[in-house]
Amino acid sequence: MKFLKDDFLLSNATAKKLFEKAKQLPIIDYHNHLDPKAIAEDRKITSIADLWVVSDPYKHRAMRIAGVEERKISGDASGEEKFEAWADVCVNSWGNPLFHWSAMELKSVFGVDEVLCKDNAKQIMDECNRIIAEKNLTTNSILRSWNIEALCTSDDLLDDVSVHTLATKNSGGFSVMPSLRADSIFAFQMPAFAKWFERLNAMHKVENLADYISALSSRLDAFESAKCKLADHSLDSGWSYIETDEEQASKIFEKALSNSADATELVMLKSYILHWLAVEYGKRGWVLQLHIGAERYTSSRLRALAGGAGGYATIGKACDITSLVRFIDSVEKCGSLGKIILYTLNPADNQALSVLTGSFSQDGVWGKLQFGPAWWYNDHLEGIKAHLKSLESFGLLSKFIGMTTDSRSILSFSRHEYFRRIICSHIGEMAERGEIPQDEDFLVKAVSDISYNNAKNWIF
Amino acid sequence: MKFLKDDFLLSNATAKKLFEKAKQLPIIDYHNHLDPKAIAEDRKITSIADLWVVSDPYKHRAMRIAGVEERKISGDASGEEKFEAWADVCVNSWGNPLFHWSAMELKSVFGVDEVLCKDNAKQIMDECNRIIAEKNLTTNSILRSWNIEALCTSDDLLDDVSVHTLATKNSGGFSVMPSLRADSIFAFQMPAFAKWFERLNAMHKVENLADYISALSSRLDAFESAKCKLADHSLDSGWSYIETDEEQASKIFEKALSNSADATELVMLKSYILHWLAVEYGKRGWVLQLHIGAERYTSSRLRALAGGAGGYATIGKACDITSLVRFIDSVEKCGSLGKIILYTLNPADNQALSVLTGSFSQDGVWGKLQFGPAWWYNDHLEGIKAHLKSLESFGLLSKFIGMTTDSRSILSFSRHEYFRRIICSHIGEMAERGEIPQDEDFLVKAVSDISYNNAKNWIF
Amino acid sequence: MKFLKDDFLLSNATAKKLFEKAKQLPIIDYHNHLDPKAIAEDRKITSIADLWVVSDPYKHRAMRIAGVEERKISGDASGEEKFEAWADVCVNSWGNPLFHWSAMELKSVFGVDEVLCKDNAKQIMDECNRIIAEKNLTTNSILRSWNIEALCTSDDLLDDVSVHTLATKNSGGFSVMPSLRADSIFAFQMPAFAKWFERLNAMHKVENLADYISALSSRLDAFESAKCKLADHSLDSGWSYIETDEEQASKIFEKALSNSADATELVMLKSYILHWLAVEYGKRGWVLQLHIGAERYTSSRLRALAGGAGGYATIGKACDITSLVRFIDSVEKCGSLGKIILYTLNPADNQALSVLTGSFSQDGVWGKLQFGPAWWYNDHLEGIKAHLKSLESFGLLSKFIGMTTDSRSILSFSRHEYFRRIICSHIGEMAERGEIPQDEDFLVKAVSDISYNNAKNWIF
Repeated sequence: MKFLKDDFLLSNATAKKLFEKAKQLPIIDYHNHLDPKAIAEDRKITSIADLWVVSDPYKHRAMRIAGVEERKISGDASGEEKFEAWADVCVNSWGNPLFHWSAMELKSVFGVDEVLCKDNAKQIMDECNRIIAEKNLTTNSILRSWNIEALCTSDDLLDDVSVHTLATKNSGGFSVMPSLRADSIFAFQMPAFAKWFERLNAMHKVENLADYISALSSRLDAFESAKCKLADHSLDSGWSYIETDEEQASKIFEKALSNSADATELVMLKSYILHWLAVEYGKRGWVLQLHIGAERYTSSRLRALAGGAGGYATIGKACDITSLVRFIDSVEKCGSLGKIILYTLNPADNQALSVLTGSFSQDGVWGKLQFGPAWWYNDHLEGIKAHLKSLESFGLLSKFIGMTTDSRSILSFSRHEYFRRIICSHIGEMAERGEIPQDEDFLVKAVSDISYNNAKNWIF
Repeated sequence: MKFLKDDFLLSNATAKKLFEKAKQLPIIDYHNHLDPKAIAEDRKITSIADLWVVSDPYKHRAMRIAGVEERKISGDASGEEKFEAWADVCVNSWGNPLFHWSAMELKSVFGVDEVLCKDNAKQIMDECNRIIAEKNLTTNSILRSWNIEALCTSDDLLDDVSVHTLATKNSGGFSVMPSLRADSIFAFQMPAFAKWFERLNAMHKVENLADYISALSSRLDAFESAKCKLADHSLDSGWSYIETDEEQASKIFEKALSNSADATELVMLKSYILHWLAVEYGKRGWVLQLHIGAERYTSSRLRALAGGAGGYATIGKACDITSLVRFIDSVEKCGSLGKIILYTLNPADNQALSVLTGSFSQDGVWGKLQFGPAWWYNDHLEGIKAHLKSLESFGLLSKFIGMTTDSRSILSFSRHEYFRRIICSHIGEMAERGEIPQDEDFLVKAVSDISYNNAKNWIF
Repeated sequence: MKFLKDDFLLSNATAKKLFEKAKQLPIIDYHNHLDPKAIAEDRKITSIADLWVVSDPYKHRAMRIAGVEERKISGDASGEEKFEAWADVCVNSWGNPLFHWSAMELKSVFGVDEVLCKDNAKQIMDECNRIIAEKNLTTNSILRSWNIEALCTSDDLLDDVSVHTLATKNSGGFSVMPSLRADSIFAFQMPAFAKWFERLNAMHKVENLADYISALSSRLDAFESAKCKLADHSLDSGWSYIETDEEQASKIFEKALSNSADATELVMLKSYILHWLAVEYGKRGWVLQLHIGAERYTSSRLRALAGGAGGYATIGKACDITSLVRFIDSVEKCGSLGKIILYTLNPADNQALSVLTGSFSQDGVWGKLQFGPAWWYNDHLEGIKAHLKSLESFGLLSKFIGMTTDSRSILSFSRHEYFRRIICSHIGEMAERGEIPQDEDFLVKAVSDISYNNAKNWIF
């Protein structure tokens, strides 16, 4: 069964014309979870199963909904078994972005132009593996095929960020920069914290909050030297902000280290540290990314089987907007509010976050608060359209920095093409409906800014 | 004024072709509020007013918005007066599902092909009553006309469920099964509880929580013998879950019986019982239905006049997702999490509940967590489309068990046709836009699974 | 670059035909923030910059997102500088209602048919100022050009409402009525309260809650004499209702005056006063407007620079529906529940508020609870369509009282044309899709009722 057409998602003549321009623009992917070591080493691809199925939490979710046994998802089944199990689900994932992404990735990387299903699974797997071997595919040969200009990985505070320089050197044409994934800093009550804190202590002795802040500061210096331009915080479902002073925070910090801080105290301590970091990012000219509203604790069973990022997370409560504005205001009051990208997992927040882009400003800085692209479970045709309509109606879409993959997979850059097809269609439809001027220069500028120019000019 | 066309809601050629298939499939209505006694007795229909207007809370709401005096809604006006009052509102209900449902029901059951309004009210009432008399219409002759294969009523824990066997026998061709409406079990603080508890005591002496659990268990046995496959709980606006152990729950139970439990204690007691029941359903292979987010206490005046289900309820707060996942996880930890259908009255929850379908799984069980069809006030063109788009984008629509009426009326089975027209249109539009393959077998399977096959295979 | 066409937003032939009727109907603008003194004095327009840019918080928001320096927004730059700064933003505001409103206002008032941008800013400014001078434009000559029949301004409890009589007299053809903006009454903890309370004391000595109520009552009498028919309350983000009796409220009132009431006590005091006022409005036959869900405290910096209504507010939390229904029910229990218009800033509330229109009723009063038009940041193509779809699907759109501007600008009446184009398109599309009868009388009535008749018959 064939499926993809050249005009896929391009709903009218204007859209088609616009996409001819948009598809030629390079990609800036300012937030993803690629492994910089794999790029530095330019790893050889071993098989389509390993590359595409074995560690993809999106596919794993769909396979669970379809009743696939966990052994073939996160378990010890072979790559072949996992690929075949996925193939049977793939054809039934119509309507879900996996159906589109899969078709686009198989076609653009492997020239496979069939809907993957049980019957053709073996044949397609063999064909893909043949091409992997024939073309000697590697991490960077695939990455280069997407026309990437720059990408920013997500790195723990304690990660070695010297690897990014090597990654850029070995990439064969694109820049690889670190960005700070800050969550470990706040994970006081988590099992993994003790070990992480021990590693931090090996770098900088930490006996109190002042030491902790000093250790953080020193690691931020290391990231800055490695060309880091962004940091990233998860504000999970139920997050709130309580303005907290240094004295309060210092006392709670000691309790937190001995696991005796209560829930409210932890909120206060985290609020203090988040505030300190945000001020620091502002001083350093970094962008603060806030990923709001995930509920990561669902099935304890799946967490034990599939790990912390196993694809079973869900959408949590709507954002506590009052906490969010109190936090941002408290940073602005310190005189060093930097740029912010807001993401939400709960699309019931779309309009609130779109409006919020007009609530803080700075002379000469356009788009200071961004409502970032449709995040994670929202990253699909409906979610992207909902985000665009919200941002344009409640904010200024022309100042939007556009798409980033937020993905762990080197195949996910197809999502930039997906996004560009949607933005071209969206703008083409508005033009043909007479809601914006049917003027070529105007429309090409709109599409190009959102696909590429804005990200380039805003972040770097 | 004529209105309905054959291609009603079928927006393109593919949709029309698909509906030719879908309309021939039988109906499985796995959750409704029909009276099994009426089916067992195959009651004679008396008049269109009694059949269609006198006890329909949907119509009553619309009549109130239109300013009709309450006497002609829930009061002592004659059936004729009520029918005429409704007729005047019907023509003004365009945009609301009542307008479509009314036209479809008048046409398919009575051959009336006019928009009901003040001017033709008398004439249409007479024509319908003439047909009722001429055809000697009964509960089951109308029900049979919808091509029903099986239906599940909602029955109180203390109801006599032997009537369903008789109902099936007298139905003339379809199965009638009970399902447990569990709300009375939790209604400790309600005026009606004392009487209900007395009736339970007459069956099983209850002096403490252990007795209560034992009484519940024994009634579940009775339902199981009567082929019950589903239970149903309302988690009304503000619902939350607090993990509670047997010792705590036992103490609170005694306070609850003496009306001295406070609000938090009641939440704990209800959490304990809900957890116990869910584990029990899992063991028995029943489906747990959760109807989330109704605010049933609005106008005290209307509650006094029109009773507890008088059509004045409203949409409550968005779901407390954290409570919901803690509850489901606590059941899974006990090793007997069964199938669940989640419904929400607040469509701001659509995306969260769609994603949640991928957060719990079981080897070999597809669609273990269902996001059930657009419920109650959401059961209309916009609501159904919003539900479908959400479920397909954030979950797997191909595993959706489809429509159920949740209605008290034997005319509401027209809503299956309504749903099928919408699903055919939705899938036909995706196909013609090139978002899914334009392949007949593929499309017919998609439509048939959601209209009929999935419900049949998943529930029974 | 030309842009606006005659069929702007009219998507099919039926829509175009309907708009021919709708555009001829007068305007009833039942809630806005126009200055009644400016109408009474029929002030001369000085320049397009002063008229259109200098004090428009919508444009100011967009200018901030675009990075314009605050000096050219709320600061001491000249009108010319501000106009030019806005022009550069205007062309980049596509997708936002500002783009459409600006084009419509420039065209209908000044005959300018170009998209305003940096390059043509000076030329268009000069042309507009030439026309202002040539036509000797005044507040009322512009207002008359919109075919207004009646408008209701928003006036503080202590405002002189005798000016409205003069305004009506000098308007040259339309009625100007006051409506009560009640927020000062509740602003106990605000800096401005002391001064306001002093002014109230000068009219009526207030030493306790009974005096306060008596003073309010006397001011309501004054508003009633000035033909006031509506009052308006902001229920900002986080609002809740706690039923409170007179004795409790009296004690808290004294604490509030000495700034020693805590947060919960203030909620109780405000609940008591809101309840008293709502009962009073009901007795007087006034309409109670509730504007729900704004978060007005975002950037302290912008508040200091641009004042309390400077365009930096945002959308707050979803409505606490339980509080809302408890409040309305408590008023109904007193036997004097009047008409209510509910507005929400958070469109996640759209469906809940649409359904709520059927939860309270009164014999002979149609549309007693209105879900008012898409408010403030929602007042645009997407927001209006979302509101219409929600209200028709969950309520009765045929009983909707339609558009009001809620604006401070005499140019904003273009938004009635905008709304009418959208409603004609919406209804025209339903008709051509076969979802409502394609009957001219039926469709013209639908459009005319929502554009004009309903507001006229419901409010006055």
